[in-house]
Amino acid sequence: MTKQQLYENIRRKKSFLCVGLDTDIKKIPEFLRNGEDAVFQFNKAIIDATAPFCAAYKPNLAFYESAGVDGLRQLSQTVAYIRANYPEQFIIADAKRGDIGNTSEMYARAIYEQDDFDAVTVAPYMGEDSVKPFLRTGKWAILLALTSNKGSLDFQMTEDAHGERLFEKVLRKSQQWGDAENMMYVVGATQGRLFADVRKIIPDHFLLVPGIGAQGGSLEEVVRYGMNAQCGLLVNSSRQILYADSSERFAEAAAAEAEKVRNEMAKWL
Amino acid sequence: MTKQQLYENIRRKKSFLCVGLDTDIKKIPEFLRNGEDAVFQFNKAIIDATAPFCAAYKPNLAFYESAGVDGLRQLSQTVAYIRANYPEQFIIADAKRGDIGNTSEMYARAIYEQDDFDAVTVAPYMGEDSVKPFLRTGKWAILLALTSNKGSLDFQMTEDAHGERLFEKVLRKSQQWGDAENMMYVVGATQGRLFADVRKIIPDHFLLVPGIGAQGGSLEEVVRYGMNAQCGLLVNSSRQILYADSSERFAEAAAAEAEKVRNEMAKWL
Repeated sequence: MTKQQLYENIRRKKSFLCVGLDTDIKKIPEFLRNGEDAVFQFNKAIIDATAPFCAAYKPNLAFYESAGVDGLRQLSQTVAYIRANYPEQFIIADAKRGDIGNTSEMYARAIYEQDDFDAVTVAPYMGEDSVKPFLRTGKWAILLALTSNKGSLDFQMTEDAHGERLFEKVLRKSQQWGDAENMMYVVGATQGRLFADVRKIIPDHFLLVPGIGAQGGSLEEVVRYGMNAQCGLLVNSSRQILYADSSERFAEAAAAEAEKVRNEMAKWL
Repeated sequence: MTKQQLYENIRRKKSFLCVGLDTDIKKIPEFLRNGEDAVFQFNKAIIDATAPFCAAYKPNLAFYESAGVDGLRQLSQTVAYIRANYPEQFIIADAKRGDIGNTSEMYARAIYEQDDFDAVTVAPYMGEDSVKPFLRTGKWAILLALTSNKGSLDFQMTEDAHGERLFEKVLRKSQQWGDAENMMYVVGATQGRLFADVRKIIPDHFLLVPGIGAQGGSLEEVVRYGMNAQCGLLVNSSRQILYADSSERFAEAAAAEAEKVRNEMAKWL
């Protein structure tokens, strides 16, 4: 998918919501839990209910890997289901991968060829050759810049001798590796005004923004400091939508929750 | 496995060799390639041939994930085979994982419970809460410090205002999260004398050292600057052993290659 196509989908839907498919078998409604392919069945219902209100889906691979081979089969089913039924959706593998060049190439094959993801989150610590294999025409590396968790303070904010913080160095240096057509950045919703500092370095790129809802970030602040002329934001919500209700009405509750976020978003588009 | 047990295995075997099971279906001998579970059959032969000469095995998960669900099944078979037949071996998931706390916990379940690995490589960029879920009694987080690739220069060597380089900050700060009984560090063999700087901060920890062989690092330098009183090194070799020969004699050739490295190592133990 190109940046222009993504922006057009966002405009048409009036939504830059990304639904995080962090599906935990222990948290899905009890009546589903013991059925066959329970995680996929749950995802399918969530996708059908929320697709009108979002522009992207983001399964976090950890949740599927923790269920072993069976979990990964259901991840593949989920990606294939979105592709077949909602081809306008942008599908992100939240995987935080990154290894030496020939190994990152193997991860890229897993994510883009075994499963037909559009994008993958990548950790920057190992530098250029660990990131480049994830850049392909129409496919995106989403580099961790400033994450939403407490541990983001441990290294990402470290200033070098010239006053440049590590997340800023990641943003700046990675401009040599790709561009706004094949790279995005993770910036946590909890980072508030730091979005303005991010935008000084990368005015045009899309940002993937986790951390509203359960983690406490504010959508309004993200928009105020982070939005650009082509939206430039994909704001993720996971638990608040997936587990809005634990009865047989879970999908309707998820739709209502996603619609609420979409209506908020529509005001700014 | 405890640090003492690992050291005793190393002493008994006179080897601190770790065999990297980066098995690429395109590189295994042709006569094996079309059989059932070809990757597992290849691994099994390599393990049987090299077990007398090494102290650890390290499958890189990218190689298995790139073959989809079928690849991951063969990874599980491989880990189970080592566990059952060579219980003294230390088994490392080379996965470079790391995510917010509740997600890292999911990865830890995948690696320690779905498959019975002893250790996992972890990327430090997201800080403390992304690393801690991998620390369990008898289980090890192996944190990336100074990697063997060219991209290691991009961020890991960045000096802060006090002259501390990022890899040194990772070493120092992570001392608050765990100790030499549940943490190790990745330091690439290509880093030569920087091993001495690493040892100033973490004299007692084990280091996982990739990058001899194909990547050009020197075993002698690693030993000179990196070894401590309890060895403190697991030196990895992958391609040089796995693909020593492409005929039906591949396993004997792998054994000969591993024995050669072991004989070199024995001199220093």
